[in-house]
Amino acid sequence: MMTRNDVTELVVTRRLEKQLSWAAIAEAVGQSKEWTTAALLGQMTMTREQAEAAGRLLDLPPDAVLQLQVVPYKGSLPTVVPTDPLIYRFYELVSVYGTTFKALIHEEFGDGIMSAIDFRMDLTREANPNGDRVQIVMSGKFLPYKMY
Amino acid sequence: MMTRNDVTELVVTRRLEKQLSWAAIAEAVGQSKEWTTAALLGQMTMTREQAEAAGRLLDLPPDAVLQLQVVPYKGSLPTVVPTDPLIYRFYELVSVYGTTFKALIHEEFGDGIMSAIDFRMDLTREANPNGDRVQIVMSGKFLPYKMY
Amino acid sequence: MMTRNDVTELVVTRRLEKQLSWAAIAEAVGQSKEWTTAALLGQMTMTREQAEAAGRLLDLPPDAVLQLQVVPYKGSLPTVVPTDPLIYRFYELVSVYGTTFKALIHEEFGDGIMSAIDFRMDLTREANPNGDRVQIVMSGKFLPYKMY
Amino acid sequence: MMTRNDVTELVVTRRLEKQLSWAAIAEAVGQSKEWTTAALLGQMTMTREQAEAAGRLLDLPPDAVLQLQVVPYKGSLPTVVPTDPLIYRFYELVSVYGTTFKALIHEEFGDGIMSAIDFRMDLTREANPNGDRVQIVMSGKFLPYKMY
Amino acid sequence: MMTRNDVTELVVTRRLEKQLSWAAIAEAVGQSKEWTTAALLGQMTMTREQAEAAGRLLDLPPDAVLQLQVVPYKGSLPTVVPTDPLIYRFYELVSVYGTTFKALIHEEFGDGIMSAIDFRMDLTREANPNGDRVQIVMSGKFLPYKMY
Amino acid sequence: MMTRNDVTELVVTRRLEKQLSWAAIAEAVGQSKEWTTAALLGQMTMTREQAEAAGRLLDLPPDAVLQLQVVPYKGSLPTVVPTDPLIYRFYELVSVYGTTFKALIHEEFGDGIMSAIDFRMDLTREANPNGDRVQIVMSGKFLPYKMY
Amino acid sequence: MMTRNDVTELVVTRRLEKQLSWAAIAEAVGQSKEWTTAALLGQMTMTREQAEAAGRLLDLPPDAVLQLQVVPYKGSLPTVVPTDPLIYRFYELVSVYGTTFKALIHEEFGDGIMSAIDFRMDLTREANPNGDRVQIVMSGKFLPYKMY
Amino acid sequence: MMTRNDVTELVVTRRLEKQLSWAAIAEAVGQSKEWTTAALLGQMTMTREQAEAAGRLLDLPPDAVLQLQVVPYKGSLPTVVPTDPLIYRFYELVSVYGTTFKALIHEEFGDGIMSAIDFRMDLTREANPNGDRVQIVMSGKFLPYKMY
Amino acid sequence: MMTRNDVTELVVTRRLEKQLSWAAIAEAVGQSKEWTTAALLGQMTMTREQAEAAGRLLDLPPDAVLQLQVVPYKGSLPTVVPTDPLIYRFYELVSVYGTTFKALIHEEFGDGIMSAIDFRMDLTREANPNGDRVQIVMSGKFLPYKMY
Amino acid sequence: MMTRNDVTELVVTRRLEKQLSWAAIAEAVGQSKEWTTAALLGQMTMTREQAEAAGRLLDLPPDAVLQLQVVPYKGSLPTVVPTDPLIYRFYELVSVYGTTFKALIHEEFGDGIMSAIDFRMDLTREANPNGDRVQIVMSGKFLPYKMY
Repeated sequence: MMTRNDVTELVVTRRLEKQLSWAAIAEAVGQSKEWTTAALLGQMTMTREQAEAAGRLLDLPPDAVLQLQVVPYKGSLPTVVPTDPLIYRFYELVSVYGTTFKALIHEEFGDGIMSAIDFRMDLTREANPNGDRVQIVMSGKFLPYKMY
Repeated sequence: MMTRNDVTELVVTRRLEKQLSWAAIAEAVGQSKEWTTAALLGQMTMTREQAEAAGRLLDLPPDAVLQLQVVPYKGSLPTVVPTDPLIYRFYELVSVYGTTFKALIHEEFGDGIMSAIDFRMDLTREANPNGDRVQIVMSGKFLPYKMY
Repeated sequence: MMTRNDVTELVVTRRLEKQLSWAAIAEAVGQSKEWTTAALLGQMTMTREQAEAAGRLLDLPPDAVLQLQVVPYKGSLPTVVPTDPLIYRFYELVSVYGTTFKALIHEEFGDGIMSAIDFRMDLTREANPNGDRVQIVMSGKFLPYKMY
Repeated sequence: MMTRNDVTELVVTRRLEKQLSWAAIAEAVGQSKEWTTAALLGQMTMTREQAEAAGRLLDLPPDAVLQLQVVPYKGSLPTVVPTDPLIYRFYELVSVYGTTFKALIHEEFGDGIMSAIDFRMDLTREANPNGDRVQIVMSGKFLPYKMY
Repeated sequence: MMTRNDVTELVVTRRLEKQLSWAAIAEAVGQSKEWTTAALLGQMTMTREQAEAAGRLLDLPPDAVLQLQVVPYKGSLPTVVPTDPLIYRFYELVSVYGTTFKALIHEEFGDGIMSAIDFRMDLTREANPNGDRVQIVMSGKFLPYKMY
Repeated sequence: MMTRNDVTELVVTRRLEKQLSWAAIAEAVGQSKEWTTAALLGQMTMTREQAEAAGRLLDLPPDAVLQLQVVPYKGSLPTVVPTDPLIYRFYELVSVYGTTFKALIHEEFGDGIMSAIDFRMDLTREANPNGDRVQIVMSGKFLPYKMY
Repeated sequence: MMTRNDVTELVVTRRLEKQLSWAAIAEAVGQSKEWTTAALLGQMTMTREQAEAAGRLLDLPPDAVLQLQVVPYKGSLPTVVPTDPLIYRFYELVSVYGTTFKALIHEEFGDGIMSAIDFRMDLTREANPNGDRVQIVMSGKFLPYKMY
Repeated sequence: MMTRNDVTELVVTRRLEKQLSWAAIAEAVGQSKEWTTAALLGQMTMTREQAEAAGRLLDLPPDAVLQLQVVPYKGSLPTVVPTDPLIYRFYELVSVYGTTFKALIHEEFGDGIMSAIDFRMDLTREANPNGDRVQIVMSGKFLPYKMY
Repeated sequence: MMTRNDVTELVVTRRLEKQLSWAAIAEAVGQSKEWTTAALLGQMTMTREQAEAAGRLLDLPPDAVLQLQVVPYKGSLPTVVPTDPLIYRFYELVSVYGTTFKALIHEEFGDGIMSAIDFRMDLTREANPNGDRVQIVMSGKFLPYKMY
Repeated sequence: MMTRNDVTELVVTRRLEKQLSWAAIAEAVGQSKEWTTAALLGQMTMTREQAEAAGRLLDLPPDAVLQLQVVPYKGSLPTVVPTDPLIYRFYELVSVYGTTFKALIHEEFGDGIMSAIDFRMDLTREANPNGDRVQIVMSGKFLPYKMY
């Protein structure tokens, strides 16, 4: 049987061979391109219907379709500090703006966190005469610390 | 003379003593609350006017006002993986969604990165009957790799 | 003004000098001994009433009482892997039982996590003829991953 | 012959194929679901009877049944700080509450530790109108440091 | 299908067998030897024409030619601090001259960075009677931090 | 007596107070701005004349002038992977282009290294209608491995 | 008030000034030299009588005597891998003989550990014509893993 | 040919299949169970006679018998801090008692170390009505630092 | 084709099978035993004649002979701090004597380094009635830092 | 009282103020410049006579003279991989030649190590028309692993 890593590599390969966009697969799966891509890259869990839809499009074997329905061991990066420049920039935002996120969320909401579980995001192109921009809208439920 | 760290600690203390919100200081400085907070926490560089406005509000000594105009050594976190739960959730987003960010930005824009320099963000409360949410809109210029 | 670390050290010292138990301080504060100890060790945020109650009992200066009301930068350990044997045993439980926690929570609840924010715990002595035992009851809200 | 890792992967796969719950396997093995899951994930040592019961249910080859009776090299996580969000929350509890565990156990018992060896735990669903909760009851023998 | 690592190893091997210089391959690809080498070592993304030109010269299979057109997960080194003496010297330059780069670029340009994306470099032999020298000319666009 | 770190911090502070550019100090010292800045930031060793010239300009005490003539313990960065974005970009160049540097230098010169000791560099502004660029010309003696 | 580290440094200094052997202090304290040294170096907890005996001998202030009765945060080494050659040899024994300890203890006792809490040791000189030897006798209670 | 790791895995497997104790193999080899186990786990070097005796008992192929006579690259643990609880307890002893070992050995012998090379140990069961104990007697030659 | 690692493993194996000493191979290669061993262990680059001589003696396939002529990615150790006791002692010398090397070389030569590239060494047995000694004579060109 | 670190810093400072060479201090102490420098930099232990001789020359206070007679916690470097280029080159030699040291010492002596305790070294200038060289002669007793 395949491991989840095998499934991820197979998805990446098949998508390339079939020249499918992530957005197109997401449409077939019936969820956003952000969630669907994360699921196919081994970070989220699909329902049977979603996995089968992806499996049909990507021509995945039954083992792979089954694996997509199993909760994965999450974490998509091979090193603690990511080496890939695109991904590193997000790490840099955490490093540079970490205390700013903390100060402003606590100012608005008090002690607690922005959930990374009850979370959604939307990544789009923002047209701009000085060069188009990546826009990411993140939305996470505020979870207050409870006294007890 | 004070080090930049001394300035950051003094800002944090004075803000507390004077019961000033970050938003109120930002208004006096004339920039967004996100940028102003980052600058006062030692991550951005102020103009003389901005530093003096902050200095008046927070009653900072001249040395501190001068330091706010110097480019800081950036990075606001004491450890490679942040221990603070609020900040960790952002690290977790990079860990879980890192390869998803990469896949979707390359699909839309080709090889390159979202700039963390030509970047702005806006953090707001999103009212929600199931519990209010933190909304963060990030916008970074796409920078394509150049062949040569 | 004091840093939060100074406050933590002062609390530890004063408690010792005044021979107060954590349980007694918690009673004065009006919360459980678990939450109150965490708050006084720099990991939770008190209300003004709670901080003042703790301040009176421990004879803390106004600066310290103010700091107890500020959201702290959380994380109580000086190293990534704790060296103290008592605390290490908890790390060992995560290391040995980590995949078991994951398997059983997913089996019962599906994909998601046990919240460490909407969380409470209760630590008691469990009498036992073969040697008394430490009993810890943890309760954390299950947070399901949301599709979007 | 199989390594213990091979056995763990095979158990995970077979469980999936046969659609068996961890609780059902535990019942066949005759121990709690917590201990049985840990044993099958390579962290505990089974007797011959337990291993054979698991082997029958999961259709494991004799080599695997033998391996389940061998004391494993324990530690179930691939990194020092776990990346999986569910498991990380437990690490976070150690990081945030580590000094609180220490303070309260020493207050109640004096110098010593809660054993992670003479230890049992019970993980259940706690119904709650605001969202069900994960309840974990841990019980470890207190072991006092001995003077000599 | 091949992974990108397989492609890199195959390129290295084929180049050796065919006794081709990096410069010669670059000429066939139609880009500089610096960019072309980086691309073939798995750090840049080729167009179809470039990949096919490289494929013909190195006798690569279609899978490899396809992979060369996919954006790679960048980062060419197996350890955080490189052990290879030639590469370590570059790390040493960053370590010794890091704060000097920072001081001089900020003095000339203000707060911002030298882009590692909109970047080109040229590596040549500099004849010298005391022993020839390696000359590297780097050119990266200055990107100023934006206030907002 | 001052440590070398004290001297570096004093230099940084005095330069700020006196509003002197690194280039102006270098001119007084009689060396390039690159070498002089590195020396004043604790990475190179000055002659007595150079140290005294810098001392006069920056109004340094005799202890500091003496320290500038002592060989320092080199390495200017507080972490193994630099957090400051400007300096990180240089680390990223080593990470992305490390194997390219190696391939091209060996192709041109055979086995050996580019010296980071017999090394000079020149950092200038490169005017460009699309945005000015940072140009860095590095020159290091090639040192061949010797057989023996 | 003193921190435990201050107490440890004071003990080390006073012992030196008063030219007292660890064995002599242990005799006054009434415990073995191994346990007493560990306690005075901040790793064990003394009773009031023991702390006062040590305090009289070493002329410690009341704060230090009080601190010796508090359970310390244990772990005596500044780095994960010890740099001191004497201490490193013990780390090397764990590294080289780790799997041997494991194999032989499990062979004799089954699954479980040798307690480092219910533990005592005795360090003596072993006369030997080829050079005297250090003999260390360790005795730790075997703790079996419990099924549940 | 087999690597030493292959030999170690084969030894572990064959011992299991043949149900041989480490002590029985040691008797055939003619050395202590401690040294023999370490040698078979890849940490010591056997003579031809010893390797052949082990080979006969464990039915090892000639390649494995040859490898057992080669000096291995020592170090038996996969991580810097061992995760296995039995082995970790020994690391904990080094962490907690490291400075105590140092203080007492220097007090008795002066500056130097206990050799981990000219070293022997003996691990036995120590019967005890409160639960049997693991007794380990270590003996290492004292090596004094030499002045020169 | 073989990777360089495959070549190193094959060399080690063949040397063992053919019972050749490193010194004998070095004689056939025509260089010192130190350089030749390093080259065969994947750290230096051979000429075609040297590689063919080694290939004949060790019965290496053409691919391996070709690989021995390619500049390797250097660094022979699997971990940052070596676990093997023999190799660790050299790391310990750097740790204990590092600042002494630095002080004495700077005292004799001024600021600069001892080259590890223009370097040779000679390792011999030094007969001694108290036990033979390892003697290593290292010679590296002094490279002065250049002002510019 | 001073810590050993304070003593090391004071020695470094006084040597500078008094313009004394390490060789001159060594002569007064009556040992080699290598051992004496290491001792004064906090890595070796002096006799009373040696410490007093150093103290007179460097005008050290009695506390410092006493500390020089105490066995220090050894290890002179602030990071696991040294950043200083001169010291790094020695780390590089261990990294590149580590397996070569191992192979050649085992070939000559069998299994065992070169002692870093029963060790001496001599560092001298080696005149050379192509540039003078640093020569280091190391001599360490071979210590064989003992079977038992």
